[in-house]
Amino acid sequence: MSGAAVRLIFLGGIAEVGKNLFLLETERDIIIVDCGLGFPEEDQLGIDLVLPDISYLRERRAKIRAIFITHGHEDHIGGLAYLWPDLRAPIYATRLTAGLIEVKLKEAKLLDQAEIRVFEPDERPRIEAGDFTVEPFRVCHSIPDSVGFGITTPAGLIVHTSDFKFDPTPVDGKQTDFELLGQFGDRGVKLLVSDCVHVEATGTTPSERVVGETYDQVFAAAPGRIIIATFASLIARVQQIIDTAARYDRRVVTLGRSLENNVRVATELGYLQDPNGVLISPRAAKDLDDNRLVYIVTGSQGEPMAVLSRIANRDHREVTVGEGDTVIVSATPIPGNETSVFRIINQLFRSGAEVIYSARALVHVSGHASQDELVRMIELTRPEEIIPTHGEHRHLALYTDLAVAAGIPRERIHTVEIGDVLEIDEAGVRIREQLDVGYVYVEGVTIGTVTDEILRDRKALANDGMVMIVVNVDRETGLVMTGPDVVTRGFSMHRNGTDLTPELCDHVASMLEAHAGTQDSGDWSYLGREIRETAASWLYARTRRRPMILPMVLEI
Amino acid sequence: MSGAAVRLIFLGGIAEVGKNLFLLETERDIIIVDCGLGFPEEDQLGIDLVLPDISYLRERRAKIRAIFITHGHEDHIGGLAYLWPDLRAPIYATRLTAGLIEVKLKEAKLLDQAEIRVFEPDERPRIEAGDFTVEPFRVCHSIPDSVGFGITTPAGLIVHTSDFKFDPTPVDGKQTDFELLGQFGDRGVKLLVSDCVHVEATGTTPSERVVGETYDQVFAAAPGRIIIATFASLIARVQQIIDTAARYDRRVVTLGRSLENNVRVATELGYLQDPNGVLISPRAAKDLDDNRLVYIVTGSQGEPMAVLSRIANRDHREVTVGEGDTVIVSATPIPGNETSVFRIINQLFRSGAEVIYSARALVHVSGHASQDELVRMIELTRPEEIIPTHGEHRHLALYTDLAVAAGIPRERIHTVEIGDVLEIDEAGVRIREQLDVGYVYVEGVTIGTVTDEILRDRKALANDGMVMIVVNVDRETGLVMTGPDVVTRGFSMHRNGTDLTPELCDHVASMLEAHAGTQDSGDWSYLGREIRETAASWLYARTRRRPMILPMVLEI
Repeated sequence: MSGAAVRLIFLGGIAEVGKNLFLLETERDIIIVDCGLGFPEEDQLGIDLVLPDISYLRERRAKIRAIFITHGHEDHIGGLAYLWPDLRAPIYATRLTAGLIEVKLKEAKLLDQAEIRVFEPDERPRIEAGDFTVEPFRVCHSIPDSVGFGITTPAGLIVHTSDFKFDPTPVDGKQTDFELLGQFGDRGVKLLVSDCVHVEATGTTPSERVVGETYDQVFAAAPGRIIIATFASLIARVQQIIDTAARYDRRVVTLGRSLENNVRVATELGYLQDPNGVLISPRAAKDLDDNRLVYIVTGSQGEPMAVLSRIANRDHREVTVGEGDTVIVSATPIPGNETSVFRIINQLFRSGAEVIYSARALVHVSGHASQDELVRMIELTRPEEIIPTHGEHRHLALYTDLAVAAGIPRERIHTVEIGDVLEIDEAGVRIREQLDVGYVYVEGVTIGTVTDEILRDRKALANDGMVMIVVNVDRETGLVMTGPDVVTRGFSMHRNGTDLTPELCDHVASMLEAHAGTQDSGDWSYLGREIRETAASWLYARTRRRPMILPMVLEI
Repeated sequence: MSGAAVRLIFLGGIAEVGKNLFLLETERDIIIVDCGLGFPEEDQLGIDLVLPDISYLRERRAKIRAIFITHGHEDHIGGLAYLWPDLRAPIYATRLTAGLIEVKLKEAKLLDQAEIRVFEPDERPRIEAGDFTVEPFRVCHSIPDSVGFGITTPAGLIVHTSDFKFDPTPVDGKQTDFELLGQFGDRGVKLLVSDCVHVEATGTTPSERVVGETYDQVFAAAPGRIIIATFASLIARVQQIIDTAARYDRRVVTLGRSLENNVRVATELGYLQDPNGVLISPRAAKDLDDNRLVYIVTGSQGEPMAVLSRIANRDHREVTVGEGDTVIVSATPIPGNETSVFRIINQLFRSGAEVIYSARALVHVSGHASQDELVRMIELTRPEEIIPTHGEHRHLALYTDLAVAAGIPRERIHTVEIGDVLEIDEAGVRIREQLDVGYVYVEGVTIGTVTDEILRDRKALANDGMVMIVVNVDRETGLVMTGPDVVTRGFSMHRNGTDLTPELCDHVASMLEAHAGTQDSGDWSYLGREIRETAASWLYARTRRRPMILPMVLEI
């Protein structure tokens, strides 16, 4: 790496949505931008969370000068509680983001070790971190206090938009910092790292305010309780619910741990205003008539343990819904969640409640830029080169077409994958090599114990179940002493009314008999393999299924 | 059941989408409408297909006079190959539908036993079947030769729309039979059984022809091969591809078994026209340049073994895609399939191909009626009562609101579930009782062997894997002879770099030691339970996971 060259490596959040983390590296220094987590894909069975693989950073810990966080969403801050002990650099964030990070670090018992340095973007700070100077700029997004970063590097100015939209009427009144973006453009932007996840949408993303208009209509007509499920971090939406409730003389109860946490932090830090005191406790709600009540609840993505799901399943202690109640599912399902979300919506309709969801009204708007906004960002910053991020391959490809139409040469727009080592210098941006970057799975309280082999086994068990075959053989002769015994789980040994078990046992037993006495050594461990192969082909011939066969040969 | 009363029971296809089957019953006779199959839900692990539970019909087989089929989609005919042997009544269908049924019955070696009676809806036949007279009427849908039925019963005229839309410009030129529907209205319709699955869409569903316009634009611009994935039964779309290909001097190859079958049957029966001979074999395609070729392939729903998925995974023998190729995914994902469909679209983009999908162009239209068409159906038939079908609870609820707005009293619109026994007579429609109707799972070559218990086990194994603990004890004393031995699958015994196995074995061994010699009877089978409980709580305390514990105690 020559003197003026800078390395850029995404360890997550590119060619995928989730676990955002990238790093910039010179010979002496590294800075990290965001430290998020991801949610498992369908075939990652039993996994709770997925973290970026930070092996590359672990080996270079002494070089890490700072971690810059763009905003308080899980896919940008959620990795800190697990990975900060391996990074141990100061964390820079806006005030609300810092508040949300503190909650996580406190739970992870890291708060006394980690240093969080709060910056105020409106003061236009210039934060020095080794070879880098970082200038945050305000952006609109679906959580307050979001920023992007202008990063001055030895190879030139890199502008990272982070997640953004250009909301002309943001609920908190804080606009995207167009002026600073324009200044970056004047100074000359070497590289724009742009959000692209909402590129499928033409035009401009609607303002968050339109959701407030829907709320107003629903509140005006609702005869009984109103239950609104939305993202726990959507403080602007909570604000609009509080405001609408005040106008209709209703009180608001929040239910669900992440929502309660976020509302508490946002209120303490002044990001949520409740001038009329409409926020009340669940206990205080008991004394109010149904038409005086609004519940904001978690679970808008169909999460099975969240409040909305429990309400729909009639499994929530405080809230049951039925005739007269109105439920607003104020979100659109993230791809992969459709089935669970619609299952809940169906259950709510079945209970007799009125259900307002995305197909019926404008109950949700995206926090991300549509095509016109993405082009405007390019026009403001006038970059030499672009890397689209925070999208899957289809988003990267559509963004590339859009940027080409906006006048950027195709060869200056880079489709990058996790682990690509990019080198940026005078000449431009090049992929130099490819790191071997894996998945790090979180399961319960443990990190990194689940391997790909374990996931393969889970998938096999999920599809076909298992057949365990246990046999005791004489250590000397190999003669069967007891067994074979067969135990199955997730697999039926019955076919057309017949239990295949006795026949399978006979079949395995005669195979074993043929082997008895053939070994002088008395090592019968190979019999396990024989049992597995014999049983597998015998079962496949009769059932066309391939259950996992677990032979256990005990020598006595 | 009084003389003029009729029973109506849905054994599938109501408050759900899939496995359509309902029956009408008088004292003497039963007729069945449709015999479909369903696809498993996410948590029905390892299941290939789901069938309606026809126990009620099995007990009344002697009364079954006929099976009337509306159209050739899997969710309306797919159950016949499995269930016809239990029904053994003549099957009534239109010519194309009969052709598609024959393929299935032939594969199931039932063709020589089953009797298929073909009717021509344009002849306005009146088919007598015991106490019922059935009058088919043509409807537009996403497969040719679709019909609904006017069914004259002792309790009055029932009109079943089946799946329908009002396409003003159908590709095959065959309109919905508005005239007969109007005649039914004049005669007086007791009950309308209406499709409602597309009720979330306002206005009118676009004509299938608009997809042909998109094809025209794509064909005009595509530099190389064109690959189009769509539903195998969408003959009208295949026709439009053939027509467009002829205009652009391209040849068409079909890939995928279900598509090839359907195209063959439709061509033989005259439902598909290829006047220019553009359909060619894969072998003939080898001699043509890329810009002369169109492939129609299966797998538009992301099915992992279908052609599109194999192409995207670079796992297809004849077709690999890359730079210069254009892929049209001419379908929208059915809820639950989004993840697999988008994964494939991402892979195709990654290969360098141009990919046209629902977010980019009008590549698919629904085969079902939108709100205006649903209202028009009500206006044409002017029913006394309505049962919305072919939708989940949210569709039933939205349809009910729509029908109320169209002037039908709310109490005359019935939300019905699978197994509800409806009695229809002079007085109206009432739910009399509720049958106990379950799921019948098809897995590989076998039906009905997978139970709910097996599915629960699979789910547990999928999430947490399993730990098998085997021990040999002395039959007399209960003393451990060998073991405990631990084998795991889908579960890791490692935590923070330590293998927990030896400690678990010690823990189980000391528990067993404490029990040794305590039983006179020498019955040690209860030790299995003890091992399970001991190991489960020991593991949960250390891992917060609940793997399935499989103890095996062998007495020697």
